Amino acid sequence: MFRKERIFTPGPVEIPDSIREVLSRQIVHHRTTEFKTTFLETRELFKQLIDCTSDNFVFFSSSGTGAMEAAVLNFFEEGDKVIAVVGGKFGERWSELARKWKLQVVELTLEWGKSVDPERIKKLLKENADCKGVLIQACESSTGAFHNIKAVGEITSSYDVLLVVDAITALGVYNIKPHSWNIDVLIGGSQKAFMLPPGLSMLWFSEKAQKTLTDRAYYFSVKEELKKQKEGQTAWTPAIQLILAFKEALSLLLTKGIDKVEKEYRLISTAMNKAVKALGLSVFPENPSISLSAVLPPAGLNADEIRREMLNLGVRTAGGQGKLKGKIFRISHMGMNIMDMVIALSALEVALWRLGYLRELGKGVRSYLENAYQNQ
Amino acid sequence: MFRKERIFTPGPVEIPDSIREVLSRQIVHHRTTEFKTTFLETRELFKQLIDCTSDNFVFFSSSGTGAMEAAVLNFFEEGDKVIAVVGGKFGERWSELARKWKLQVVELTLEWGKSVDPERIKKLLKENADCKGVLIQACESSTGAFHNIKAVGEITSSYDVLLVVDAITALGVYNIKPHSWNIDVLIGGSQKAFMLPPGLSMLWFSEKAQKTLTDRAYYFSVKEELKKQKEGQTAWTPAIQLILAFKEALSLLLTKGIDKVEKEYRLISTAMNKAVKALGLSVFPENPSISLSAVLPPAGLNADEIRREMLNLGVRTAGGQGKLKGKIFRISHMGMNIMDMVIALSALEVALWRLGYLRELGKGVRSYLENAYQNQ
Repeated sequence: MFRKERIFTPGPVEIPDSIREVLSRQIVHHRTTEFKTTFLETRELFKQLIDCTSDNFVFFSSSGTGAMEAAVLNFFEEGDKVIAVVGGKFGERWSELARKWKLQVVELTLEWGKSVDPERIKKLLKENADCKGVLIQACESSTGAFHNIKAVGEITSSYDVLLVVDAITALGVYNIKPHSWNIDVLIGGSQKAFMLPPGLSMLWFSEKAQKTLTDRAYYFSVKEELKKQKEGQTAWTPAIQLILAFKEALSLLLTKGIDKVEKEYRLISTAMNKAVKALGLSVFPENPSISLSAVLPPAGLNADEIRREMLNLGVRTAGGQGKLKGKIFRISHMGMNIMDMVIALSALEVALWRLGYLRELGKGVRSYLENAYQNQ
Repeated sequence: MFRKERIFTPGPVEIPDSIREVLSRQIVHHRTTEFKTTFLETRELFKQLIDCTSDNFVFFSSSGTGAMEAAVLNFFEEGDKVIAVVGGKFGERWSELARKWKLQVVELTLEWGKSVDPERIKKLLKENADCKGVLIQACESSTGAFHNIKAVGEITSSYDVLLVVDAITALGVYNIKPHSWNIDVLIGGSQKAFMLPPGLSMLWFSEKAQKTLTDRAYYFSVKEELKKQKEGQTAWTPAIQLILAFKEALSLLLTKGIDKVEKEYRLISTAMNKAVKALGLSVFPENPSISLSAVLPPAGLNADEIRREMLNLGVRTAGGQGKLKGKIFRISHMGMNIMDMVIALSALEVALWRLGYLRELGKGVRSYLENAYQNQ
């Protein structure tokens, strides 16, 4: 038959049909009542998603890195000291960005794959009384590790610091409530659990963060965007198609309910982890994010060999990044439902069998089905 | 019958069906051979469009303002002196951006609607021997004025300055050849004559500009993007859908030939100007860009009243911006062919008749048809 490719990468992820339909529509002008109404409705849905009543958030026409840069530029001044949690490629990006904009960076480095012990953050905050912020990922997608943001927030909330969370690979997966989690700046991106093409990012901030708002940015100015976006407009021409599609994405998530969404991703993650172990492989991160499965190949096999075989079977996965190149492979759960994952897992089994590692097929899938359906 | 709306705004413009089809496709991952190939092909087509062989250009996931910021950040250092030609809202943006990033700005202000006299630039360059750049628009879309970039380039080329041209509303309309026009930094945006949704911008630069490349930017770093984009990759996650659609847009333009494209826009512009005059109205700019018609309402009528009537007839136009609010209306030609413009003009006539200004209908359209078809 003809070839079909299914995308199981942790961003971009498969775009649902209803979103593709929105993307294909004729353009609407952004300086119209029609767009304004949709934009404000989209903002209301976003508030529902993160359980907030405040209007302190903006959308940028950029990829997620742009919103990370915005966080550094808008909430910190030159010379401000920040702690950057570096346990993967995206932690490194925080550190790089902060240095680029002349902050003083205290790196809290972790072995890649580990999650941060919140007590280490407490210790650093005690040692650095002049610290202004903690920069961290919710999900460090390069390693698949989840940092316990809620526990970190309990610590940072009693210091005069801002907790800045890159939740690009976590928003829309976890039921993240920035208020009750004590998050000060929260960042998201379109091409992850929102299932849109890349090009739209989100930045939410707390009242505490509002007090430190600077005038350092131009394109990424939170002040300028906020002034306009509260009224349903934007400072610069917005990514119109992505805003309209974001509304559809938020509707999809909220119709199901973000609690149920998280529950299903958790179920997928648990069942995937067990299935991977049933095949004799190990899950790479210590505390896996439910957004994706980052897996170590069995001894003697290169992760990229496995990925190539899976791709031959129509399943696109991601490899390791930076120092993990060739060392792990990553299968995204984002935008996928319980049944979808059977395809990724089947391709993994067949790939491992073709590479001579497995003698029989079906063990992983059986484990997955049992844990995803039977043991509920 | 049912309502149809046609968009005659100078960005965003109507998206052709073949581009909408690309936008609706399932996502492809950007770290794949498939994307890399398409990306490099897109770059080759862009080179053809601007008649360049060098690889000195990058695409950003941002609206045009992002690429303007990139120009200021990547080619100038703090304290550098630049001349900003300010004859409209986008000239003001150059000036604002340059100040934001701590350049010294010498403003060459023009009455809105006027085009710059290149001799004034020469005079300023003589008076400011330490000047590092001239920031200008090709088409100042807020007034509809075209600045004679070629003539400006002949002057700047004999000084040690960079000619930085925001051609967002001119690329894909005019056959702009940055090399022979002596442009040093050339900027474009997706939602104008490329007929895409907003969210992608382009920045090309000369060898002269290459020598002044700085390390000031992060998200908008030309150096980092260039290193990757030459190899078919990007520093940050690209606006995948827009890149694929950009390839289609470039193919459309190049299949017709950019010379023929410019010729047709010129024909439209001339015929529109004459038609507007035949109706007793005046064209606002002294030297109109062929990208759009910016029109003064007749005495006693507000531009926004006319726009409202035209909108009732299904034709969306743009109003004036900044100090021109309510004073002019703007009808875009971008993405439209000769016959399309008949609709905009007919709506204008009917609107003027309904508002009591015209007693008979058809004069403008007759003039347009004669000049667009008969007098060729």
